[in-house]
Amino acid sequence: MTRPKNDSFLRALLREPVEYTPVWLMRQAGRYLPEYCETRRRAGNFLNLCKSPNMACEVTLQPLARYELDAAILFSDILTVPDAMGLGLYFAEGEGPKFERPLREEWEIRALAAPDPYDHLRYVMDAVIEIRKALANSVPLIGFSGSPFTLACYMVEGGASEDFRRIKTMLYERPDLLHHILKVTAQSVIGYLNAQIESGAQAVMIFDTWGGTLSHRGYREFSLAYLEQIVAGLHREYDGERIPSIVFTKGGGQWAEDIARIGCDAIGLDWTSSLSEIRRRVGDKVALQGNLDPMALFATPEVIAAEGRRVVDDFHSAGPGGGHVFNLGHGISQFTPPHHVSTLVNTVHEYSRHFHRL
Amino acid sequence: MTRPKNDSFLRALLREPVEYTPVWLMRQAGRYLPEYCETRRRAGNFLNLCKSPNMACEVTLQPLARYELDAAILFSDILTVPDAMGLGLYFAEGEGPKFERPLREEWEIRALAAPDPYDHLRYVMDAVIEIRKALANSVPLIGFSGSPFTLACYMVEGGASEDFRRIKTMLYERPDLLHHILKVTAQSVIGYLNAQIESGAQAVMIFDTWGGTLSHRGYREFSLAYLEQIVAGLHREYDGERIPSIVFTKGGGQWAEDIARIGCDAIGLDWTSSLSEIRRRVGDKVALQGNLDPMALFATPEVIAAEGRRVVDDFHSAGPGGGHVFNLGHGISQFTPPHHVSTLVNTVHEYSRHFHRL
Repeated sequence: MTRPKNDSFLRALLREPVEYTPVWLMRQAGRYLPEYCETRRRAGNFLNLCKSPNMACEVTLQPLARYELDAAILFSDILTVPDAMGLGLYFAEGEGPKFERPLREEWEIRALAAPDPYDHLRYVMDAVIEIRKALANSVPLIGFSGSPFTLACYMVEGGASEDFRRIKTMLYERPDLLHHILKVTAQSVIGYLNAQIESGAQAVMIFDTWGGTLSHRGYREFSLAYLEQIVAGLHREYDGERIPSIVFTKGGGQWAEDIARIGCDAIGLDWTSSLSEIRRRVGDKVALQGNLDPMALFATPEVIAAEGRRVVDDFHSAGPGGGHVFNLGHGISQFTPPHHVSTLVNTVHEYSRHFHRL
Repeated sequence: MTRPKNDSFLRALLREPVEYTPVWLMRQAGRYLPEYCETRRRAGNFLNLCKSPNMACEVTLQPLARYELDAAILFSDILTVPDAMGLGLYFAEGEGPKFERPLREEWEIRALAAPDPYDHLRYVMDAVIEIRKALANSVPLIGFSGSPFTLACYMVEGGASEDFRRIKTMLYERPDLLHHILKVTAQSVIGYLNAQIESGAQAVMIFDTWGGTLSHRGYREFSLAYLEQIVAGLHREYDGERIPSIVFTKGGGQWAEDIARIGCDAIGLDWTSSLSEIRRRVGDKVALQGNLDPMALFATPEVIAAEGRRVVDDFHSAGPGGGHVFNLGHGISQFTPPHHVSTLVNTVHEYSRHFHRL
C-alpha cells in the first residue's frame, strides 16, 4: 500500500509536518449538495443509498469534485452495525432513523451477538473497496462507526430521543444490562472498523454523538471505557501504514484530558471549545480536529473567511507544532449554500500555510 | 424585612455555614405533580396560569406541601419579558412557545424598548407579593428571568429551534443587530428582576438555557457580557438583606472560570461537570448549584439515594467550606414519579449533615 498523493490529512493526525492545514467536513457528502439529492432520489431512499456500494461511492466522491478537500469519508450510516445485529433499521419520513425491534427485554439483550462484518456488512466493505479504487490514491479514505454508547441510545430508545429516558433508566437501574449491550457493541465496532481498514480505509473515526448527554461519571463508565477498548482493538498498522484513529464526543470538551488518554491519535471537538485551551490542557498527546460552528457557513464569504482564519489562529496561538485537521464542530447543515464551502476550504488552505512554514 | 425561618438556601449561596445542604429542584412546580395538572386544567392554558397571580401562587406552593424543599421559585415563564415587549407570546399545542411577531426586520429590532415591569409585567409582581404572603417567611422565594441570549433565541427564531440558524446567521452577519437586541433585553431583565426583588424575591436566578450552543468566543461576546451587565445592575441588597444571584448556563461547565468572574454569587451546573473539579478550577469565588441528572429520578429509591449522595460527596471531596445548593442539572421531567422526589430530598438533607459538622 502506498500513501495517497495528498497525505496532509494523515500527516496532521500523526502530528507530522504539513504544508497547510488539511480540511474535510463532517457530512461533506450530504443534502446541501444538489447532486447528492439527485443520487438519493435515484436510490429511492436513504437506506438503499447506504446499501448500494455503487451509489455510496458516487456520493462519497461528489464533494471532492467540487472542493479541494484533503480526505474522503465513506458514505454510510452510523446505525448499520445494530441493523446487522438484527434490530431492523428503517427511516420514517421526517422522523429520522428507527428500529423495528428495539432492545426492550432482558432476553433480547442477552441474545445480542457481534455481526460478521464480511457477511451482514459486506455492502460497506464493497463500498470501501470501490471508493478506494475511484480515489486512485488522490486523498485518503476515512472509515467510521458510531460509538457503543451512541449506538446503544438508538438500540434502546428505538430512535432519536429528546431526553434519553429509556437508556438512562437502564443505566441507573440495570447498569449490568447496559454494560452487556456496550460490550457486545464495542466488539462489533472493533470487527467492523478493522474490516473497513482491511478493505482500504486509511484512517478511522468514531462518532460519539450522544456521549455528551451523560454525567461526568457516566461518560467515563458508559462511553469512554468502551471507546478505549475499541482504540486498543483496532489495527494500529495495516499493510505497512499507520492507521490513525479519531474520537469525537460531541459536547465532550470538558473531558478532553481523559479522551486524550485512551490511545487515539486525534480528538474531534465541537465549537464550544477553544482549540488553544484544549492544546494547553492535553499537551502534545493527540492531534485535534475541528471546530468551526456549522452555522458560520450561513454568513457572507468575508465572514466565513474570517471565522475560518480564527479557528486556525486559535489552534496555533498555543505554540508551534501540534497537529490540526480543520473541520466543522458538527455535520454541515443541509441548508448550507454550496459555494460557501469553497470559500472556507480555500481560505483555510491559503491562510494556514504561513503557520506551517515557521 | 426578616430572613425566612429556613434560610439555609440563602446562606449556602453566600457561602455561610449551614447545617445541611439545602435542596430545591428546577421546575419543581410542574407537570409531574397531579395537583399542578389540575390547576393548569382549571386555568385553561399555560399562559393563563402564568398571568393569574392567584393560580401562579397556588402552583408555586404545591411542591413545598409535598417535600421538605428549602426554597420556592416563582412560577412563571422565561418568555414573559419578550411578551411584554410586544412580541405576542402564545403556546401552540405540543409545539412549545411561539411568538406572533418574531424579530425579522431591522426596523422591528430598532423599535424594541424595555418594558415597564410594573405595567406590562404587573401580574408577575402581584404573584411575587402573593407568594411571599403565602410563604409567611417559611423559606425564601427565588425570582428569575431568562438570559438575554436565551430570550433573543426565541425572539429571533420565533419559537424553539434545533439549529438556531436564524439567530446564528444574524450573529455572524449582523452582530450589530444582535447586540442591539441583547442590550435592550439586558436592560429589560435588570428592570424585571429588580422589580421582582422590590416585590419580595429574596434571590434571583438567570437561566441561560441556550448559551451552551454558542462557540467559546460567541458565548463571551453574546451571552456572558450581558449576564455580567445584569449582575452589575441588580439590587445587591434590598431592605437590609443581601439578594444573592445565580447564573446558570446549560452546557457551560467548560466556561465556569469566566462565569465565576462576572460577580454573581453562585453558578448553576448541569450533570456533565464534576462539582469538585469546578470548585478546584474556580476556587471559593462563588457557590455552586446542582447537579444531578434529572433522569436519575427514574431509578429505584435505593439508586436515587446513592446518586444524591454521590453529588454531595463530589462537592465536598474538593475540601471543606464552599457553598452548595443541591439541585438537578436541568428541570425535572414531567414523567418523574412524584414519590421519588421525597427520597432524593430526604437523602440529601440527612446525608449532608455530617459534612457540615466538620
